[in-house]
Amino acid sequence: MTATKRALISVFDKQGVEDFAKKLIERGWEIVSSSGTAKKLQEAGINVIEVSDLTGFPHILGGRVKTLHPFISGGILARRHVDGDLRDIETFKIPLIDMVVCNLYPFQEVAQRGANIDELLENIDIGGVTLIRAGAKNYPHVIILTDPLDYEQILEELDAEGNVTLLTRQSLALKAFAHTAAYDGAIVEGLSSELGVEPEMKKELTIPLKKEQDLRYGENPHQEAALYLPPMKKLPWVQLGGKPLSYNNILDLDCAMRGAALLQDGPGALVIKHTTPCGMAYGSTLKEAYEKAFRCDPLSAFGGVVGFSRPLDMETALAVSQHFTEVLLVPDGEDEALEFLKKDKPSLRILKWKGGKVLPWQITSTWSGFLVQQDILPPLPNPDKGTWIGPRRDDLWKDMLLAWKVACLSKSNAVAIIKDGEAVGIGMGFCSRVFAVDFATNQAKEKAKGAVMGSDAFFPFPDGVEAAAKAGIKAIIQPGGSVRDDEVFKRAEELGLSMFISGWRTFRH
Amino acid sequence: MTATKRALISVFDKQGVEDFAKKLIERGWEIVSSSGTAKKLQEAGINVIEVSDLTGFPHILGGRVKTLHPFISGGILARRHVDGDLRDIETFKIPLIDMVVCNLYPFQEVAQRGANIDELLENIDIGGVTLIRAGAKNYPHVIILTDPLDYEQILEELDAEGNVTLLTRQSLALKAFAHTAAYDGAIVEGLSSELGVEPEMKKELTIPLKKEQDLRYGENPHQEAALYLPPMKKLPWVQLGGKPLSYNNILDLDCAMRGAALLQDGPGALVIKHTTPCGMAYGSTLKEAYEKAFRCDPLSAFGGVVGFSRPLDMETALAVSQHFTEVLLVPDGEDEALEFLKKDKPSLRILKWKGGKVLPWQITSTWSGFLVQQDILPPLPNPDKGTWIGPRRDDLWKDMLLAWKVACLSKSNAVAIIKDGEAVGIGMGFCSRVFAVDFATNQAKEKAKGAVMGSDAFFPFPDGVEAAAKAGIKAIIQPGGSVRDDEVFKRAEELGLSMFISGWRTFRH
Repeated sequence: MTATKRALISVFDKQGVEDFAKKLIERGWEIVSSSGTAKKLQEAGINVIEVSDLTGFPHILGGRVKTLHPFISGGILARRHVDGDLRDIETFKIPLIDMVVCNLYPFQEVAQRGANIDELLENIDIGGVTLIRAGAKNYPHVIILTDPLDYEQILEELDAEGNVTLLTRQSLALKAFAHTAAYDGAIVEGLSSELGVEPEMKKELTIPLKKEQDLRYGENPHQEAALYLPPMKKLPWVQLGGKPLSYNNILDLDCAMRGAALLQDGPGALVIKHTTPCGMAYGSTLKEAYEKAFRCDPLSAFGGVVGFSRPLDMETALAVSQHFTEVLLVPDGEDEALEFLKKDKPSLRILKWKGGKVLPWQITSTWSGFLVQQDILPPLPNPDKGTWIGPRRDDLWKDMLLAWKVACLSKSNAVAIIKDGEAVGIGMGFCSRVFAVDFATNQAKEKAKGAVMGSDAFFPFPDGVEAAAKAGIKAIIQPGGSVRDDEVFKRAEELGLSMFISGWRTFRH
Repeated sequence: MTATKRALISVFDKQGVEDFAKKLIERGWEIVSSSGTAKKLQEAGINVIEVSDLTGFPHILGGRVKTLHPFISGGILARRHVDGDLRDIETFKIPLIDMVVCNLYPFQEVAQRGANIDELLENIDIGGVTLIRAGAKNYPHVIILTDPLDYEQILEELDAEGNVTLLTRQSLALKAFAHTAAYDGAIVEGLSSELGVEPEMKKELTIPLKKEQDLRYGENPHQEAALYLPPMKKLPWVQLGGKPLSYNNILDLDCAMRGAALLQDGPGALVIKHTTPCGMAYGSTLKEAYEKAFRCDPLSAFGGVVGFSRPLDMETALAVSQHFTEVLLVPDGEDEALEFLKKDKPSLRILKWKGGKVLPWQITSTWSGFLVQQDILPPLPNPDKGTWIGPRRDDLWKDMLLAWKVACLSKSNAVAIIKDGEAVGIGMGFCSRVFAVDFATNQAKEKAKGAVMGSDAFFPFPDGVEAAAKAGIKAIIQPGGSVRDDEVFKRAEELGLSMFISGWRTFRH
């Protein structure tokens, strides 16, 4: 044993490693390394002890087993203040390792580029993770570096203090365990995705996240915030222009994308404000859809998030430019139309939406814990597969389906009034259904006459149906399920309303 | 080398392990084991090969290094179809290991019972995690068992098929990596908590979750759902009676607990419906608080979640029993009052709230990714530390503070009207502020006269202030921050309103 300090270096990300190793040697350290890292250091003229020379055991299984040896683990894990440990170190002549510099092959990137299962398995690091975890466990005695960005600070501390402070070693250890946790979380995601394993509500659910972007603040300016992505996921849009997205923009975008997905069967548009649509419509053209969506509630549409189900054309871009919009979500667009908007509205956040799928789970943290639920809609209502109360109205079905779509996107309790492919009244976020009906009918005014209504959940009492009939609504689509359904259905029939019972509630809080 | 199959067993959770080992031996398997597991198996008369006999290397560092040896790693990691690997196995006489049975010391439980840092570090398993990860990586050839509940199925497959199917080995491997990911996630949480490390928005954020309870369904019956807890967290309540909680109950409870926390300065009550308060009040007694909270919107209060800031007494329990309530949250209660309610309302979910703190982060998954934000309120408004527009109204301050509390709990856009310690009108979830004002003033009716109003964000235009003044509101508390603040302030003064500008927005979506 010697007082010389020893660093074990084994890195995939070789950024700055030669310089760091050189500077350690200048400070009297010895470098232990293997394979690619050793080669790179040796090529830079750096003196390196091969792991296999230190262990006296060769690399076997094509490199699968290199550092998994008691001399390496022991050299890292020995407690420098425990007599028994030091005796073992003496007895077996195990060289102490005082610093572990190790980062892992980016499994996530390999998985994202669609590697097959054999490649994925080859890219699961066993030895590296063991080195990192051993170094982190023994942080009272060992420096564990998993991030090249930390090399500089370590050198500075070594120069200033002659050692690295306990506080730094501690924080490096936490970073190291966060790294291995994220790594194994990514392995679960990557393997599951490649193997086509259906997600299930497992006993243990680990959500590994990587920061995608810092946000200026959260829902409110006093709340720090950031957007994170799970390993196999990429952003479902590309930002083409405008200011950075805010936390609330991203919340609203969730609704905008779901809405655009529901409007795929025609040129469609919707305006989101405070996570809920304040206008949603089809049109014969995209411009018409936009104008119809906008006029449902022009007051609220001010500064909203607008989503489209068809690529942006010039006439729609011109219509959009007439109003203040915060975010525009388009599946694509004519170059001319996009360029015009980028120039005309330099602050407008324009997002090109790539479509795709939502995550299988919707996750919400609450004071009681994390609520995890399947993120899925019930089957789209089918006029042949539900119950009609009163006369069947195939002539109104298209509008009834849109009413269902608006209601299922809106904050509960939600009620939507639709006429001619256009939401003319949306009541949402109310504590009672009848309030939602009142708000929607007041908003729709004369347009409620001959229109249809969609509700995200059953009518608990006949009052909502009565208010709808009074406003001139002709047909209602709702899931049913109230203990008073009979009473509600009877009242609807008495009032000459048609009602379609879909059977599926669509609350959204 | 021999055709005998070999299982390495090293388990903390020893449930069923003797029986499993015996049955493996009956089927011709050899058992390799060490320390506690070996001892337990030997005591049961099971023939075991000690790990140190197999490696020819003793356990060192007080057990820190046992299985970290190339013979063990190599025996697990060798690819049975790769010539080079098989040659290495031959050359070094490495015994192949075909099954790894390993589970880890429950770090989480040690951390939860408040172990000190040395104990925590001792309880970080290095060897076990390496065994598990190696077995999982090589699942095409190796069976990796981390859960005693899986022993039975494995024996059945061995009997039926003579081997374990690839599909089973694959699913066991995924479970194994989920286990190690969760384990390292728990280590990060446990060490951070013990070391008093402030959470930060790290590049990598891993959320390890354990299922606390399955839920009947999610927001809607077609959505599977469960409640999960992070490692260091326990449920903030104990359920004393009633039906199991639903997903939506737990969502509403989040608001109920936050409300009860904000009402700690007096006997207070609130009623939650669809994640937002539909009533909230102080009283000279808890019963009075409840009755005041209830009468704000009796229609919506039907089937709501009720939260209290004081222990339940008998007269309040009697008042509660007059209405249909889904969930009751009480910080504690007189035995008699709780027993009465449990008997009188057997379905009522009664939760004894333990208080405590919310998680540092609020996490919401969206189609774009995971939004993570600090879960914190801005400082409570202080009449001496903000700007008064018009005359200062200390006489109304208590109500203004309650107006602030109700607005910050309600879904945005939110406006609350308070009179004499009682919400008399709450407008919430609207896309425009003026709609929220209209709803709240309509709800308050005559009670708006001489009352105060709180708003969760600025008034973008003077219209909301005008509507408030028209209804008889005397003072408003709002954060300010609109580009039209001057115009809004001027209009408030003209209308004889007092306005306190707190400076902090409190959106809640």
